Amino acid sequence: METRIDYKSSGVDYSTLDPIKVAAQVAAKATAANLSIHGIGEVAASRGESAYVVDAGDFYLASITECLGTKALVADAMRAITGRTYYENIAQDTIAMAVNDLITVGATPLSVHAYWAAGGGDWFADAERANDLVRGWQAACDKSGVAWGGGETPALAGVVSAGAIDLAASCVGWVKPKSRLTLGEALAPGDAIVLLESSGIHSNGVSLARKLAGLLPQGYATPMGDGRLFGEALLDPTVLYVSTLEAIAKASIAVNYAANITGHGWLKLMRHPASLTYRFHTLPPVPPVLQFICQHAKLPDAEAYSSLNMGAGFALYVSTGEAARVVELAAAQGVRAYVAGVVESGPKRVIIEPLGVEFGAGDINLRA
Amino acid sequence: METRIDYKSSGVDYSTLDPIKVAAQVAAKATAANLSIHGIGEVAASRGESAYVVDAGDFYLASITECLGTKALVADAMRAITGRTYYENIAQDTIAMAVNDLITVGATPLSVHAYWAAGGGDWFADAERANDLVRGWQAACDKSGVAWGGGETPALAGVVSAGAIDLAASCVGWVKPKSRLTLGEALAPGDAIVLLESSGIHSNGVSLARKLAGLLPQGYATPMGDGRLFGEALLDPTVLYVSTLEAIAKASIAVNYAANITGHGWLKLMRHPASLTYRFHTLPPVPPVLQFICQHAKLPDAEAYSSLNMGAGFALYVSTGEAARVVELAAAQGVRAYVAGVVESGPKRVIIEPLGVEFGAGDINLRA
Repeated sequence: METRIDYKSSGVDYSTLDPIKVAAQVAAKATAANLSIHGIGEVAASRGESAYVVDAGDFYLASITECLGTKALVADAMRAITGRTYYENIAQDTIAMAVNDLITVGATPLSVHAYWAAGGGDWFADAERANDLVRGWQAACDKSGVAWGGGETPALAGVVSAGAIDLAASCVGWVKPKSRLTLGEALAPGDAIVLLESSGIHSNGVSLARKLAGLLPQGYATPMGDGRLFGEALLDPTVLYVSTLEAIAKASIAVNYAANITGHGWLKLMRHPASLTYRFHTLPPVPPVLQFICQHAKLPDAEAYSSLNMGAGFALYVSTGEAARVVELAAAQGVRAYVAGVVESGPKRVIIEPLGVEFGAGDINLRA
Repeated sequence: METRIDYKSSGVDYSTLDPIKVAAQVAAKATAANLSIHGIGEVAASRGESAYVVDAGDFYLASITECLGTKALVADAMRAITGRTYYENIAQDTIAMAVNDLITVGATPLSVHAYWAAGGGDWFADAERANDLVRGWQAACDKSGVAWGGGETPALAGVVSAGAIDLAASCVGWVKPKSRLTLGEALAPGDAIVLLESSGIHSNGVSLARKLAGLLPQGYATPMGDGRLFGEALLDPTVLYVSTLEAIAKASIAVNYAANITGHGWLKLMRHPASLTYRFHTLPPVPPVLQFICQHAKLPDAEAYSSLNMGAGFALYVSTGEAARVVELAAAQGVRAYVAGVVESGPKRVIIEPLGVEFGAGDINLRA
């Protein structure tokens, strides 16, 4: 196939999304003063970061709400091919969207709420799928050390598409001791950037993958080079990075900044508000499913690395002397990690040396 | 029109919803042990109540996620009739779904996250509607004394219906001092039940109202007895009960139990796990829009009071000697309240004396 797919043609148009995000952020910021009624205040630097942080006295309180996106549609399509529901996997993906964001600020996730909005009550009557979702949700909570506090399972005919489900999770955690707070104040030129491996597409770039599946003659059933089906590989569950971050904290290693690599791929690596250059000399291996997407959608490197995680699911910015130890601690949690780059003074940009790719600050307003 | 509408025919089938709720609750309960990793524990009695409570040391931490349901569809339909978007109103409804539930456990809401999932990025391009949503959300946060911490605004074509939006909110709060925890241990025969007025349908029973609108020749544009349009009255925003509960706490009045009256209407009044009888001698006035629904959908009293709030949005169970003071404190917050009933020993049931209506424990599994 010859078609090149970009993000706009696959249904996600960030330029349309951004204005309301900006308006919402301005309005949200104005409500911070309400906390003074209760004798507390927000940590203002957390606005624009991946989780919201409030100073609760003994500790900081962090909270977040995140959604899976459209990945359930891939699971539904693959069930028709293999008979498996894959809802255990996408349950983990949904939890990962929340906890992997929450831990970027140094928080330990404590509890999650489930939000499962179906297109009709009949969705829940499919016991196999519903039980897989429940089982996967529970397992992901156990892996993340969080209590599943409750949730909503509304049937929203007319709002959610018939037969579909909108999966989201909210998460509450604490930063304790308060010295674990990671909002980037300590980030400095010379810091090493450690990238933690991804397991595949995770939950970002899925619209692109769905569009590609629609263009392939065998769709999701297309075998990849390693013999697995494209759709099956797409459904490998997102890595949960909680235990790695907890191990690093227990080892008293200071994390100067952390970024969860989701939408916009490696552009997220320059999410920090400062003007700094992030130079990468080493690339993690690209998971086969992402190689497959890049090849068949004919994505140039610049587009691939600015829309997919390309093998890096999470980034830790630490002192150079700590980087090797971080890699070891991650490995002990079953997560391969790579000392991949370095922070330098210079204009805000990401330089991927092995590919000759460079992204500048103007490529996207990441904090909107 | 002659058709009698019941809940099943209007698209909400609670008998289909319940099994997954039960499975999810069993699985969720099993994850409580994960909190011991962090040296804390849940308040087990909060499971099955309206908000999840964790003992965080100095205070209890309460959290919740709630959704608006299908009320945005009413706003969308009314915009075609009057040109107003009404998204300011349904923003308040969404916040109310979360904060009014959170406060039942004695919590003070501190922060909320927005979850606005649209059927496509074009939803957010309608600046008037988007700005009304943002403005209404901010105003409801201000009225509730909470900080708007952030949120998600995904475009989920294929999951959310084209042109529609799935609105939800998560909320975090604290119970401080811990003596404010309200999980019903103190509830006893002899307690008075104070009902706080609703403003209309709030966000429960909306599927029924939508079905009714479809059967009326003039639909949402049908004038009611008071001259207002049916659809406009449906969109009166939900009362926020936060300031009333805070005023009661500041007055050192112990709340023995609290219930937010949402789905299942007055059946929620026997939500408490004990076997007790709730006898009502006084009924709050029924808002015109609920009178209109009951009349045109030909709802018998038993059905009306077990599916709609019928003028009572929130219930406080307090010592008889405190009831009059609770009414005064609510009035000072602009909320009319009624000393409406009394708790008695006896089988679990709600007796609405003026109507000769009685509900038993078997009418629904409210805690599932």
